[in-house]
Amino acid sequence: MDYPNDQAPGAPVRSGIPEHGRVPKYYAVKAQIDRLVDALGEGSPIPTERDLSERFEVARETVRQALRELVLEGKLRRQGRGTVVAGPKLAQPLSLASYTEGVRRQGRTPGRALVTLDRFPCPDALAAETGLTRGEPVWHLERVLLADDERVGLESTYVAEARVPDLDTAFDPDSSFYAYLAERGIVFGAADERIETVLATPREALLIGTPPALPMLLIHRVSRDTEGRPLERVRALYRGDRFSFTAHLSG
Amino acid sequence: MDYPNDQAPGAPVRSGIPEHGRVPKYYAVKAQIDRLVDALGEGSPIPTERDLSERFEVARETVRQALRELVLEGKLRRQGRGTVVAGPKLAQPLSLASYTEGVRRQGRTPGRALVTLDRFPCPDALAAETGLTRGEPVWHLERVLLADDERVGLESTYVAEARVPDLDTAFDPDSSFYAYLAERGIVFGAADERIETVLATPREALLIGTPPALPMLLIHRVSRDTEGRPLERVRALYRGDRFSFTAHLSG
Repeated sequence: MDYPNDQAPGAPVRSGIPEHGRVPKYYAVKAQIDRLVDALGEGSPIPTERDLSERFEVARETVRQALRELVLEGKLRRQGRGTVVAGPKLAQPLSLASYTEGVRRQGRTPGRALVTLDRFPCPDALAAETGLTRGEPVWHLERVLLADDERVGLESTYVAEARVPDLDTAFDPDSSFYAYLAERGIVFGAADERIETVLATPREALLIGTPPALPMLLIHRVSRDTEGRPLERVRALYRGDRFSFTAHLSG
Repeated sequence: MDYPNDQAPGAPVRSGIPEHGRVPKYYAVKAQIDRLVDALGEGSPIPTERDLSERFEVARETVRQALRELVLEGKLRRQGRGTVVAGPKLAQPLSLASYTEGVRRQGRTPGRALVTLDRFPCPDALAAETGLTRGEPVWHLERVLLADDERVGLESTYVAEARVPDLDTAFDPDSSFYAYLAERGIVFGAADERIETVLATPREALLIGTPPALPMLLIHRVSRDTEGRPLERVRALYRGDRFSFTAHLSG
């Protein structure tokens, strides 16, 4: 038994194996591939499904299920026709700082690709969440989020047109929205965030390039300026296999 | 098209349907069941798989896949042999407050069931993360977390024995660990948290009573007292279908 001394405190207790010792066959294979992954470096190709099924003396489908879970969890990633060891998840701070700043701090290059920019009367649900006036014109800015040219998320921002009337002409969609606001003297005062896990919809999977039904991290944000006036409502979806979020709490 | 006016800003844009309009059959069924769920109240049974497959003129397996995703996402839950509409996810604050306080604030009754209490020499990985001394005795307290008697999570706490030498005799495992610390004059100063999504291992699924490979929210926490000395390392796993986390950020 490898518990507890050589085990990291962030890893599952008993390597996830029940006390009765019985595990599904795919999980035993998954644990063995996981150890192999730790021994190989980021970007290293792993053996083929066929090799693995011969090595562990299990059916190809059993290997496939193990690989599928390791891909969903971000330990492996598909590359071309093969599978390679993935890098560590990005650790994005939960803070008033922008996506751009968070990604830069980790030494990656942030990018954004415009999907939608439209304007419509503020619907009831948005008015109720933000305090905007029902029917007032709001922008909806939807962008794919990139890190080092890899698509990692999808973000929808809702903001009153009265705040940023020139959003459609003066804003470069592949730049920081928060930097654009700052240039206009708009300063964030506070935000309420909620984070949950959801499955990617077909549209989201297509736009982000993930397998459908990949577990994602979804952050809802409602933010206000320093005078407490509503600023934006954001729905930001991040690949669960590529992102984690950090927070520093103090008393 | 139902976008954007009658759509909540927290819901997927275009109800998750790609611009080309083609969706997998199971997803179309899922969207229809989702609307049915909104119309029914919490705890209401939904029609049987057979009824649904007749109503939507699809195979039973297609209905099953749609239901499986709605269960994974926490919109439906299994109850006995049927499936009922689930309540909203609990919204637990990311704060120095305890699990106990967070659950109480939402009008639920917190509970904990002891799984493991043991003591061992501090391993390298734990020493590196916390600043504890390699080899010094540490407690590992592992508990299933409950809300209104429902198992919702699994928490491992690592704490130096020198801090709480009487943990094995003076602490009731079905009580708040933070209240126990407070009684001993130990006050939290700050904590670093990291949140990610992972799949439940077989052991975790068994202990929490979830389907295996359910997406979970995993919170890693390293906390210190008001003098900056290491206090605890926590690995807390929460059912992704039952929990969300909230944070209030200010500038």
